[in-house]
Amino acid sequence: MIFEVGPRDGLQNEKTVLTLADKIWLCESLTAAGVKEMEAGAFVRADKVPTMADSEDVAVTLENKRLAADFYYLVPNLKGLDRALSKGVRNIALFTAVSDTFNAKNIGMSVDESFKVIEEIVKGAQKHKLKIRGYVSTVWGCPFEGRIPAAKAVPVLERMLNLPIAQLSIGDTIGVAAPKGVKEVLKLLPQSEFKSRVAVHFHDTRGTALANAEVAYDMGVRTIDSSLGGLGGCPFAPGAAGNLATEDLVYFLKENGVDTGIDYTKLCETSLKLSQKMSNRALSSKALQAYAANCSKNPVWDK
Amino acid sequence: MIFEVGPRDGLQNEKTVLTLADKIWLCESLTAAGVKEMEAGAFVRADKVPTMADSEDVAVTLENKRLAADFYYLVPNLKGLDRALSKGVRNIALFTAVSDTFNAKNIGMSVDESFKVIEEIVKGAQKHKLKIRGYVSTVWGCPFEGRIPAAKAVPVLERMLNLPIAQLSIGDTIGVAAPKGVKEVLKLLPQSEFKSRVAVHFHDTRGTALANAEVAYDMGVRTIDSSLGGLGGCPFAPGAAGNLATEDLVYFLKENGVDTGIDYTKLCETSLKLSQKMSNRALSSKALQAYAANCSKNPVWDK
Repeated sequence: MIFEVGPRDGLQNEKTVLTLADKIWLCESLTAAGVKEMEAGAFVRADKVPTMADSEDVAVTLENKRLAADFYYLVPNLKGLDRALSKGVRNIALFTAVSDTFNAKNIGMSVDESFKVIEEIVKGAQKHKLKIRGYVSTVWGCPFEGRIPAAKAVPVLERMLNLPIAQLSIGDTIGVAAPKGVKEVLKLLPQSEFKSRVAVHFHDTRGTALANAEVAYDMGVRTIDSSLGGLGGCPFAPGAAGNLATEDLVYFLKENGVDTGIDYTKLCETSLKLSQKMSNRALSSKALQAYAANCSKNPVWDK
Repeated sequence: MIFEVGPRDGLQNEKTVLTLADKIWLCESLTAAGVKEMEAGAFVRADKVPTMADSEDVAVTLENKRLAADFYYLVPNLKGLDRALSKGVRNIALFTAVSDTFNAKNIGMSVDESFKVIEEIVKGAQKHKLKIRGYVSTVWGCPFEGRIPAAKAVPVLERMLNLPIAQLSIGDTIGVAAPKGVKEVLKLLPQSEFKSRVAVHFHDTRGTALANAEVAYDMGVRTIDSSLGGLGGCPFAPGAAGNLATEDLVYFLKENGVDTGIDYTKLCETSLKLSQKMSNRALSSKALQAYAANCSKNPVWDK
């Protein structure tokens, strides 16, 4: 239902680097709140992404704890896959984008080249029966190329979906999409895959993420990505304010009559503690702000 | 299409009191940006609402300027109506709520008592051919009474709609509604009135306002209330973070292919100047923040 990306996508771009103990605390707290799937780390270059430098330790610690959640690790290449396998990781995430310019700046490859790498990783991962999640970014817009037509995005999405992956996550990396565009893309994809193999990943840069999630849900998509507190964004997308906040999404779904299995109070308390650990970083989630302001006065909603 | 409430509902609850000249500048700038209808003041008690103490001067100045927009003034009683008429006002707004407790704390009357006052004002206003807008607050929830069932809200909405008013604005005063609840209420109202006489007024306290607006629009409602920058809130609703931001709504509608007639750049520039006039008050609009962060880099969207 909800795929939590805060511990990786969220924390990756934060100034405060959490300690290993705090990262483990975060993943455990989220699991205790009922989150069943989340990103927990990335096997990328520590010199380029220092916030993820301890992902091997994160993976070993989490795997040993045998928590009731699936933890995913970003793997950009075969070297990353080797690191993941050596630490007993069971779920990995691969990524590319619709836009060549975005890919060039992000991973130094064209879309086509990135699929060659992805196909190699998939082959290797299959041998070890890893569960694979594929991300495609810049589906509705690229910070460098501008607007992306659905006709350009859909073939890239289909190419990813045609790989033996468990799930494709469709990303509005810079948060420009509105429901009309979301419908345009989703209508061109195989609806039979929506329930089991398609996820949506909206950024709330211009406030449209929940409305987009509503449309995707109405069309049959059942997995929505979000990030605790709205943490994160993208260093390659100037002005991108951050992911859809998990609190906003859980509040929204429960008011819509959808049971996410997540305990809202535990989720919000985790956010508030995380904020403290990050030098009282203000979190962008509006639902969290409402929770923090009046949970005792409005127990009907903010619990 | 968009009914702007910033100059009254927004400014009313701000700490910074704008000067008369700045209020006039704001209304003129909004008109220049293409806003066709807005609240501009309130004929309430100056000692209770000091931010609106100069509404008579606002009204006289705006009426003399003959701008290409309709300006509305809140009128709580016959005395307020007299003040409005004496200043040549042509459009007034009346208000009540679904919740007796909210009304008691806000206006010192029950819902029933408030309708007696409203009916008197309507009679007086009709003699002078004023255009009347009626607000009903706490339609989905009350900060004191909690959740409001649709069956309780709808009779109050119908009672307002049965008066000879130009428009009814349905308010989620504390920002708790999600699309499911919005549909429940709207389905029970006469759909034939949606296009011409019904407006929705969502607060974005928990991030749900745009998704709610999308649902109302899909059901045929064509007027949506919003406040520049997301200014405002309600002093009687603890924790209410503020109105749906006009920038978020305009961005959303234009990306959805709906022409609001509002120039997005002029709108955002007005917000940024307003923020400066208010001691650089941070405005909650996410679209505005995106505009401010990267308008030069992403001209495709943020213009």
